[in-house]
Amino acid sequence: MYSFKNDYSEGAHPAILQRLMDTNQVQQDGYGEDAYSSEAKQQIKNIIGNQQAEIYFVSGGTQTNLLVISYLLRPHEAIISAKTGHIYANETGAIEATGHRIIPVDSLDGKLKPADIEQVLADYSLRPHVVKPKLVYISNSTEIGTHYSKTELTELSAYCQSKNLFLFLDGARLGHALMAKDNDLTLADVSKLTDVFYIGGTKNGALLGEAIVFNRTDIATEFDYHLKQKGALLAKGRVIGIQFLELFKDDLYFSLATHANAMAMKIAKVIENKGYTFLTQSSTNQLFPILPNDAIAKLTAHYDFYVWKPLENNCSAIRILTSWNTDEEVVDQFIEELEEYL
Amino acid sequence: MYSFKNDYSEGAHPAILQRLMDTNQVQQDGYGEDAYSSEAKQQIKNIIGNQQAEIYFVSGGTQTNLLVISYLLRPHEAIISAKTGHIYANETGAIEATGHRIIPVDSLDGKLKPADIEQVLADYSLRPHVVKPKLVYISNSTEIGTHYSKTELTELSAYCQSKNLFLFLDGARLGHALMAKDNDLTLADVSKLTDVFYIGGTKNGALLGEAIVFNRTDIATEFDYHLKQKGALLAKGRVIGIQFLELFKDDLYFSLATHANAMAMKIAKVIENKGYTFLTQSSTNQLFPILPNDAIAKLTAHYDFYVWKPLENNCSAIRILTSWNTDEEVVDQFIEELEEYL
Amino acid sequence: MYSFKNDYSEGAHPAILQRLMDTNQVQQDGYGEDAYSSEAKQQIKNIIGNQQAEIYFVSGGTQTNLLVISYLLRPHEAIISAKTGHIYANETGAIEATGHRIIPVDSLDGKLKPADIEQVLADYSLRPHVVKPKLVYISNSTEIGTHYSKTELTELSAYCQSKNLFLFLDGARLGHALMAKDNDLTLADVSKLTDVFYIGGTKNGALLGEAIVFNRTDIATEFDYHLKQKGALLAKGRVIGIQFLELFKDDLYFSLATHANAMAMKIAKVIENKGYTFLTQSSTNQLFPILPNDAIAKLTAHYDFYVWKPLENNCSAIRILTSWNTDEEVVDQFIEELEEYL
Amino acid sequence: MYSFKNDYSEGAHPAILQRLMDTNQVQQDGYGEDAYSSEAKQQIKNIIGNQQAEIYFVSGGTQTNLLVISYLLRPHEAIISAKTGHIYANETGAIEATGHRIIPVDSLDGKLKPADIEQVLADYSLRPHVVKPKLVYISNSTEIGTHYSKTELTELSAYCQSKNLFLFLDGARLGHALMAKDNDLTLADVSKLTDVFYIGGTKNGALLGEAIVFNRTDIATEFDYHLKQKGALLAKGRVIGIQFLELFKDDLYFSLATHANAMAMKIAKVIENKGYTFLTQSSTNQLFPILPNDAIAKLTAHYDFYVWKPLENNCSAIRILTSWNTDEEVVDQFIEELEEYL
Repeated sequence: MYSFKNDYSEGAHPAILQRLMDTNQVQQDGYGEDAYSSEAKQQIKNIIGNQQAEIYFVSGGTQTNLLVISYLLRPHEAIISAKTGHIYANETGAIEATGHRIIPVDSLDGKLKPADIEQVLADYSLRPHVVKPKLVYISNSTEIGTHYSKTELTELSAYCQSKNLFLFLDGARLGHALMAKDNDLTLADVSKLTDVFYIGGTKNGALLGEAIVFNRTDIATEFDYHLKQKGALLAKGRVIGIQFLELFKDDLYFSLATHANAMAMKIAKVIENKGYTFLTQSSTNQLFPILPNDAIAKLTAHYDFYVWKPLENNCSAIRILTSWNTDEEVVDQFIEELEEYL
Repeated sequence: MYSFKNDYSEGAHPAILQRLMDTNQVQQDGYGEDAYSSEAKQQIKNIIGNQQAEIYFVSGGTQTNLLVISYLLRPHEAIISAKTGHIYANETGAIEATGHRIIPVDSLDGKLKPADIEQVLADYSLRPHVVKPKLVYISNSTEIGTHYSKTELTELSAYCQSKNLFLFLDGARLGHALMAKDNDLTLADVSKLTDVFYIGGTKNGALLGEAIVFNRTDIATEFDYHLKQKGALLAKGRVIGIQFLELFKDDLYFSLATHANAMAMKIAKVIENKGYTFLTQSSTNQLFPILPNDAIAKLTAHYDFYVWKPLENNCSAIRILTSWNTDEEVVDQFIEELEEYL
Repeated sequence: MYSFKNDYSEGAHPAILQRLMDTNQVQQDGYGEDAYSSEAKQQIKNIIGNQQAEIYFVSGGTQTNLLVISYLLRPHEAIISAKTGHIYANETGAIEATGHRIIPVDSLDGKLKPADIEQVLADYSLRPHVVKPKLVYISNSTEIGTHYSKTELTELSAYCQSKNLFLFLDGARLGHALMAKDNDLTLADVSKLTDVFYIGGTKNGALLGEAIVFNRTDIATEFDYHLKQKGALLAKGRVIGIQFLELFKDDLYFSLATHANAMAMKIAKVIENKGYTFLTQSSTNQLFPILPNDAIAKLTAHYDFYVWKPLENNCSAIRILTSWNTDEEVVDQFIEELEEYL
Repeated sequence: MYSFKNDYSEGAHPAILQRLMDTNQVQQDGYGEDAYSSEAKQQIKNIIGNQQAEIYFVSGGTQTNLLVISYLLRPHEAIISAKTGHIYANETGAIEATGHRIIPVDSLDGKLKPADIEQVLADYSLRPHVVKPKLVYISNSTEIGTHYSKTELTELSAYCQSKNLFLFLDGARLGHALMAKDNDLTLADVSKLTDVFYIGGTKNGALLGEAIVFNRTDIATEFDYHLKQKGALLAKGRVIGIQFLELFKDDLYFSLATHANAMAMKIAKVIENKGYTFLTQSSTNQLFPILPNDAIAKLTAHYDFYVWKPLENNCSAIRILTSWNTDEEVVDQFIEELEEYL
């Protein structure tokens, strides 16, 4: 059995583990005050071309989302998110638990456009009987594999700025978005076009860890207190600092995502060639092909994946995730079976 | 320079890193549903002799404390803690941030006794104008190096039970308490005498990780939701599961704490022999000797530690922490210098 | 100018003010421990035929909703509400501010049916990655003037019970629902079919005040603490107790609602006779007639009301609210104008 | 039996009830947008001589405290209060329930001095492991009957400003403080020397109601949302507006407090003359005389009051509260009995 269920099925990229080994005996201060974390932060600032950025390392995506949002908002302020947004669909009310409403927006491609935001602002205008929308949450790549073009993100960013809304980009799979073949955004663009975003490590080869990037010093002046208060400040902050140091050495972060995408595209091509379609148009590491149920049943003999959505005509959409560690030989064998069953 | 500032200055015990390496390529389900975590939980249940226990792995102590307390309490219920308790003294209001008052109690030795609790219950009796004390929080070893005897914990436990109060033991340094030479408690005793406790990994050789142990199934039936909601559920839950698997193999957890304690006692003995006293009576890995300021100044040339409290007669209390990784050769050299300066 | 904007435009029914005068100099204990509140509670228990009820008086509807919901739910539990539900549409995120998600359901008539709940339960099944739906919130009459039949409420109640969900009925305008000509529910039925509900005073003749009724003693055992903690426990609890005492003397509460409904129905009949329709089918004191914009413009010369929703063909829905205090002479004059303009 | 238990034992001053009657039939907009509330706010601005003030009417003191504090503070910020402060001693953790720690300070006279604050700032300096003290909460008069002199408040105000701390004055009994014979503060002084304060109505003759006064427009720009979200925005806002309109007409507010104080002082004088002392030095409407237990026992035959604190030598401190409505004839009779028993 081989699992295409997610991109966090294994441990970490070997180079990361090796770096943890190599630095293991060096004494460092705790709580993120270690030299590795400092160096890793500086490295990221250089790559995004923004020396004003404030960077914090934390252990997971839900934690990141609740930390950032509850730090930026006042109690009566709300978040706008696509219904498929991770904070709305998959985080057990973590945001509401910090006191804020998420206003869900229907979106076929998992992305938000200025018109979506405009509609919400119109719907939420009866001050003070409604919450005040103040932060727009987007994911790139999205939870359904799509990603933002430079034009889309630029337009959304300009609209948010004109309405005095924070724009927060969830980058749990930011590497996969930026390495998509049809992508035209860079990490530097993301830093310029958002107020805050995060670079996901957990889903791209780290043991654990995300890098939160506030793009302006002034919006994060007391975030250190917040990290500690929410239980997110690791005593051994080095554990994540070291990993990001390695991830952004020699572009490892990008090459891992490139591999994951390539494996997905290899599978996608076969499915397309066979005349089958997809629930969403993905050029990243998440595929949602619509396949006949009998073919799906056969595939489950050797492969693990989620059956995403039962559809008509004895078909279902399944979810296939590839990762930094996906074995190309297994992919080739999977493709062989696909060609046989379809 | 060698640091005695804390017990989380280095990475992890090499055996733990090795285990992470060995298991790295094995695919597992995410979110704590991996085989390693299951095995580690079973192992702990066996050691504490309690098959009804519910165990969860999380990344740090503050996170543990806020998770457990906010899960067990209703909004109007409060916590009783020593003023030195970590939740009152060092966690940035993490508990209050979940909505609950901590009622602080003065305690010279950092421990709580039934009489302390009784006084709080008397002070907080004017229902409904005051919060309802409902949970007693203790640390073992305490934040000032002391530890509970079996008699003390038994009496406190019986009192809490008689008053329908939860007893929660913070075990960030539980290994050090249980391995103290004058200790008569076992891990199984701790499980029997408390409602919930945690076994600290971060301060005893793990990269990160604490094991929360609910001693009765019925008080943790929906804790999984809570973990996720508070951002504490790691996608790669294996990372902590694997570490605890190793920590409780061949009693590594206990031998690491034994080493830390031994190093501290070696230092303590010299200080005592020289006729100096301590701020608190510790037989664990935290020492608070009271030394002349000029001797302290000389020690800072080669050693890093906290000056804890300036005292009269040109003396100060300093804090010396030893750990699973403290180098005995350095300790011997430190002792030599101590003997010279005192 | 006469206002049909809402049912809280004036002070209180004169009999209520008189009762406040009559009792003014009598000394009583504070914080709801006064004899008037006790008597008023007993009176309500008698009327609903439920001696197990626990009753609390508070000052407003949003306060009631947040008090009840945050008391009943654990942090990871969520509420199901119609999108038009007051807690979702008009309370500035008061519920989310206590940490809970409201799951909104589309409903044309503002009411919830078992099938709506069933769909939400299916959507929220991926434990622990989603919140746990635990409380169903309904309003009777609804925010758009409709009301539940005995059959509807009985079916919903049975469904909730079968799924272990709390059923909470917002009765801000409960009098108007129960006095609707086509209503077959009694206050006693409401008590039997829900876990908790409230009887709205503010919108039916009181200066301020709502009566929260928990229908079972065991679900409200420590609600007194909660009231105080949320700032809802009035020092002069008598102020609301006295009003409810008067409201439920000689069925004043019901006759006031009957008047409000009658005034609305009188207006509705004319509009129907003229061949115009309504946005919603109301037999209570809230009407949403769809009228030509020019007629609406003429009406605004003498009457105040909300233009609810612009529609096609130069028409709009307006909202007309009548109340316990609506002057029948003004209604007759309004009807005259209506007949002229339509 | 006559009650000296508190100053909210009766309804409202008759002039207030009369005003509610007189205005009862006038239609007004809801939610504090009525003309009475506007006029009352303007009247208060004139009296305090501050046109930049932002005023909000709410229903009670605990509600006020939680509203103001949770609005002004960020999640990691804390409050400094005397241990006797109402928010610490008597409000069921209402502040902690909004997520903030209250740092309690021992104070014999119930007041805070700059040195108290300075000590707290020193104790809470280990950023980010401790909360950040940001707001100083004081009561005037205090919960034990004392009051601030102009010098004391000026010094505290200057210190808070120098440390960038908010100064919030709880004026539940502000009238009694300002009308004390040895007082030299005015309402205008209070407005100049604090960031925010409230004028208590409930304990000085209103049915219910407190006036929150933000002394600078810029610190309350979105408080309207907050009021609604916390359930504090009354549909019939007029109910409190009308009362404050009456309270500040012809100085009724001050004359009511003057009466309450005079009645207390009359009693105090007799006790002093008899050679008995007090637990605290009060010149307001709260007395804490220390009397022999047998005298106390005799007094309880005709009078209701709290036995505050058992003391040695068969004595106890009792609490006597007088109010706007205290009957001077009863006071004379009480004095007669006192003279007999002492």
